[in-house]
Amino acid sequence: MLNKIKNEKEFKSLVDKTEKIDGYKRPIGFGIARVDRGQLNSNKILQANFPIINWNENFGSAAIFVAALKKSGVQVDFSGSEFVCDIDKEFVKNANRAFTPFVNDATKEAHKNVQVINMLNWIRKIDKLKNHYKLVFIFKDEILKSVEATYLKLYALSTGKVALRSLNLNGAFGVLSNVAWSMGIPIELDWLRVNEIEMKLQGTYPNIEFVDKFPRFLSHVIPADNTRILDTSRVRMGAQLFAGTTVMPGASYINFNAGTTGAVMVEGRISSSAIVGAGSDIGGGASILGVLSGTDGNPITIGKNTLLGANSVSGIPLGDGCIIDAGLAILEGTKIGISPIEVLNIKAVNSKFTCKKSDEIQFLKGLNFANLNGIHFRQNSKNGMIIALRSKREVVLNSDLH
Amino acid sequence: MLNKIKNEKEFKSLVDKTEKIDGYKRPIGFGIARVDRGQLNSNKILQANFPIINWNENFGSAAIFVAALKKSGVQVDFSGSEFVCDIDKEFVKNANRAFTPFVNDATKEAHKNVQVINMLNWIRKIDKLKNHYKLVFIFKDEILKSVEATYLKLYALSTGKVALRSLNLNGAFGVLSNVAWSMGIPIELDWLRVNEIEMKLQGTYPNIEFVDKFPRFLSHVIPADNTRILDTSRVRMGAQLFAGTTVMPGASYINFNAGTTGAVMVEGRISSSAIVGAGSDIGGGASILGVLSGTDGNPITIGKNTLLGANSVSGIPLGDGCIIDAGLAILEGTKIGISPIEVLNIKAVNSKFTCKKSDEIQFLKGLNFANLNGIHFRQNSKNGMIIALRSKREVVLNSDLH
Amino acid sequence: MLNKIKNEKEFKSLVDKTEKIDGYKRPIGFGIARVDRGQLNSNKILQANFPIINWNENFGSAAIFVAALKKSGVQVDFSGSEFVCDIDKEFVKNANRAFTPFVNDATKEAHKNVQVINMLNWIRKIDKLKNHYKLVFIFKDEILKSVEATYLKLYALSTGKVALRSLNLNGAFGVLSNVAWSMGIPIELDWLRVNEIEMKLQGTYPNIEFVDKFPRFLSHVIPADNTRILDTSRVRMGAQLFAGTTVMPGASYINFNAGTTGAVMVEGRISSSAIVGAGSDIGGGASILGVLSGTDGNPITIGKNTLLGANSVSGIPLGDGCIIDAGLAILEGTKIGISPIEVLNIKAVNSKFTCKKSDEIQFLKGLNFANLNGIHFRQNSKNGMIIALRSKREVVLNSDLH
Repeated sequence: MLNKIKNEKEFKSLVDKTEKIDGYKRPIGFGIARVDRGQLNSNKILQANFPIINWNENFGSAAIFVAALKKSGVQVDFSGSEFVCDIDKEFVKNANRAFTPFVNDATKEAHKNVQVINMLNWIRKIDKLKNHYKLVFIFKDEILKSVEATYLKLYALSTGKVALRSLNLNGAFGVLSNVAWSMGIPIELDWLRVNEIEMKLQGTYPNIEFVDKFPRFLSHVIPADNTRILDTSRVRMGAQLFAGTTVMPGASYINFNAGTTGAVMVEGRISSSAIVGAGSDIGGGASILGVLSGTDGNPITIGKNTLLGANSVSGIPLGDGCIIDAGLAILEGTKIGISPIEVLNIKAVNSKFTCKKSDEIQFLKGLNFANLNGIHFRQNSKNGMIIALRSKREVVLNSDLH
Repeated sequence: MLNKIKNEKEFKSLVDKTEKIDGYKRPIGFGIARVDRGQLNSNKILQANFPIINWNENFGSAAIFVAALKKSGVQVDFSGSEFVCDIDKEFVKNANRAFTPFVNDATKEAHKNVQVINMLNWIRKIDKLKNHYKLVFIFKDEILKSVEATYLKLYALSTGKVALRSLNLNGAFGVLSNVAWSMGIPIELDWLRVNEIEMKLQGTYPNIEFVDKFPRFLSHVIPADNTRILDTSRVRMGAQLFAGTTVMPGASYINFNAGTTGAVMVEGRISSSAIVGAGSDIGGGASILGVLSGTDGNPITIGKNTLLGANSVSGIPLGDGCIIDAGLAILEGTKIGISPIEVLNIKAVNSKFTCKKSDEIQFLKGLNFANLNGIHFRQNSKNGMIIALRSKREVVLNSDLH
Repeated sequence: MLNKIKNEKEFKSLVDKTEKIDGYKRPIGFGIARVDRGQLNSNKILQANFPIINWNENFGSAAIFVAALKKSGVQVDFSGSEFVCDIDKEFVKNANRAFTPFVNDATKEAHKNVQVINMLNWIRKIDKLKNHYKLVFIFKDEILKSVEATYLKLYALSTGKVALRSLNLNGAFGVLSNVAWSMGIPIELDWLRVNEIEMKLQGTYPNIEFVDKFPRFLSHVIPADNTRILDTSRVRMGAQLFAGTTVMPGASYINFNAGTTGAVMVEGRISSSAIVGAGSDIGGGASILGVLSGTDGNPITIGKNTLLGANSVSGIPLGDGCIIDAGLAILEGTKIGISPIEVLNIKAVNSKFTCKKSDEIQFLKGLNFANLNGIHFRQNSKNGMIIALRSKREVVLNSDLH
């Protein structure tokens, strides 16, 4: 068993010693999760619940966990992209002894990893550790290999510890099981099949809320005080919502690896990989296309203070202060008319906008307006022409560029 | 303690005496609520559940409540816009004694306030009154100051006791707390934060259904027998649904202080302050803009027997028997073509419609068609022009106007 | 009591004898259901839960059920379209004795009716049969007369045992009660009314998830392993989802007697009676109109590999490999321009397409394009004209027709 650590100096010394283990690598992310296992196949992990995750931080705790594992007979393999193992009583005891100097201060926002071990130590004493807990390390941001590492990355995104689109999420769909969810608990579909007759006849068939590989954001993440999500089904785990974002329940959806980087009103769809900036308004039923649905693989970013009107569709990235009128679809190939005066108006706030001179209306493709600021897209209701104008919305110019 | 009231005459006498108290004011609304308090801060009221509310009615019961409060040591302050106080055993005993003549008849639809006191008297006897109950009076329809009065007004709207848009709801957003909802119970976000580690590790983290300041309509209101709401998230508390209204789950939403005044099919969005009349059909994904989203602060009323096609958008108020074609957006500033013959056709059912004579198509703004009856808005698919025609829908003319 | 059946030969003999009863008819469908009864009116059936249903199959089990009923004193009336009766101990004992030869093999996918009787026999022994169980036969596919037969048909559709649109569902809305649903349990609205004061004051008011006549698909049916339904409210009982179909939560809905006949991505609305083929993609907010909403009663079929863009509307049936662009509405009467070259291109993959020769753009109505393959519907954004082109999507030609 690990010697009881008496003070911070001894703690640091143990950390240093551990980090000098041959091949040791500081993890990109790590954490301890309570896992839900298959009802039929208990080796199948269906969900991982992290009370707290660490991302490029708390390397001391990581080293302690590695040391505690070693003492309980588990050698961490640092050579792979991720390492996942069960937690046993020995590990908890050892980690608890190593964290001794911090135990008394571990409350509220302080020493969350110590709080986790404290709690596990109590669970250990009442003999309820069983096979419920896993320790997860990610050493390289590569294709996902385990459910636990997948959840760790989804947590990193949804808690805002990493930027959207910054992680490799390949493999997630292959690793996660499609399951039925009831009250936050994942249930194997086969288990439902095996028990259908008994449960239906006894009146104990569970109330299934959805069937998916991913859980919902609100089952794992506590949003900021001024964030509102009016229906949990609207935000998938792995989405990221900046404080102050409101998600209305009419026709909204925010997929994983998508979300907001400022306070945004969301009444429409933010598809996977799409990102929306502060002060923007995604109107009722508006659609921001995703990498798998119409954007030719280019993820869409919407700037600040931009308005997507009700039932509009955006298939191109937009800058700050833009407007797409209600009901209008602006796709990469949409031909958009622009008058000579508007060419000048738009150039005035977009130094990079290039457009040849002309005395007449020219037609550019939607993609030519990608990332420009202050564009108002309309359809002329007299003649059906889709046109681009300088919007009357304020555009906060990036001082680095101008 | 209050003397036991023996008969209706004594009851009336007590009411009269109470109403003569100096400064006494009959309340606009009042009721007794069971409240949900903060898990961390028990002084914070998170929700108020009214078994029944009174709105410009049952002034006798109000007087009895005031008298019973007085005997239990609470002086009602009639000078403010609202008055909220805790209920204790003394109050319940006193109110119960005052209601004696009606106790036996208080069942089903009769004497609901007496039923409430009967039930509270039973709860008092099993010693479960605790701090769960509040008595709420509203004396003036002014800016909201308490959670309890806010809920009382939302109940008045959602139970149909007052007309939509007739109450002052200012202050509601400031008074209500943003909380997580699980099985109808509001939970402080901070309480989740404080207990996250313990609950996640023990597998007791609650299933959060939404995060909002407002609860859902169906958590407080029992709809009419022929009303259908296919998903509770689609109707916010404070909405009003006339009997026979159907709310489908595709892309619908009815916000607070919005709703229907007749049987309506709702498959789209009725934003805050918008009202829809009998026999109208809000098609799948259709949007009626709200006062905070594109209507320049003018709340929209949609008349009777009007159809908003799938994915259409209405930014103007419409009269009876109108149609907006599927996918079309009619906003205040939309330029709409109208032919000489249609000017006549539309005038035939709209005596107030003014439009200068012309031999050619004229273009009017959307706002010029506000509140007119029998208009069909289309986009000519040959040339893209948005046009207005006399619709073929029946228009039931208002006999007072014609 | 029925003699204990010792082997398959005796079993067959009992079946044969029973099928020779005067007037005997093999049922189209039959099954045993656990029913939910009204809380106030226990004679009112609110829901029927079938652990397994039989549709044009297992006629031996049907005969055994008829024989067991007879021995327990119930004469099946074969003359009507449906027959529903309570199940008592005698019936269960008799059916159990008749199924003796199969009891040991009745596990997993084998002998499901025997498994049902086995389970009921166990429930009988612990004296919990009560009034919970019903036996339901459908002899003719006619107008529905009972809740139980209605559920049996909805199960037949949702489990894929019959094709969509192949059953007579008339009468369903008349037979089913509009009720409040909480955790899969239907509750009479009147019961809520009677108990509102008590439940609100005691804090036991149920969490109502929806109010409707129909339950949700996921409360009764276990989808295929690769089917995903991201929100249970999006699929009504009576819908049919082919394996591999994904239903996203943004603006989707699949009504009863509607659904998919192959793996389909569903982010929009599939109205009642609409059917979508393999490989098609119903974009976010797209609407397929239903028989009650704009199609003049003609149910819409969408072919294979067809794309409805985000927020598009389809009011006509489409063949294989079609595209409706985002935001576009194609209705029966929409005038659609087609150029001489596209007439040829479209004829090349649609031998049945007729269109007179012309050197200019012609305008056809939406209905003229019904069921054609490989059509791309666009709106020319220079002049607002809605046009039809040969789509670049692959069209798998039906070899029987070409």
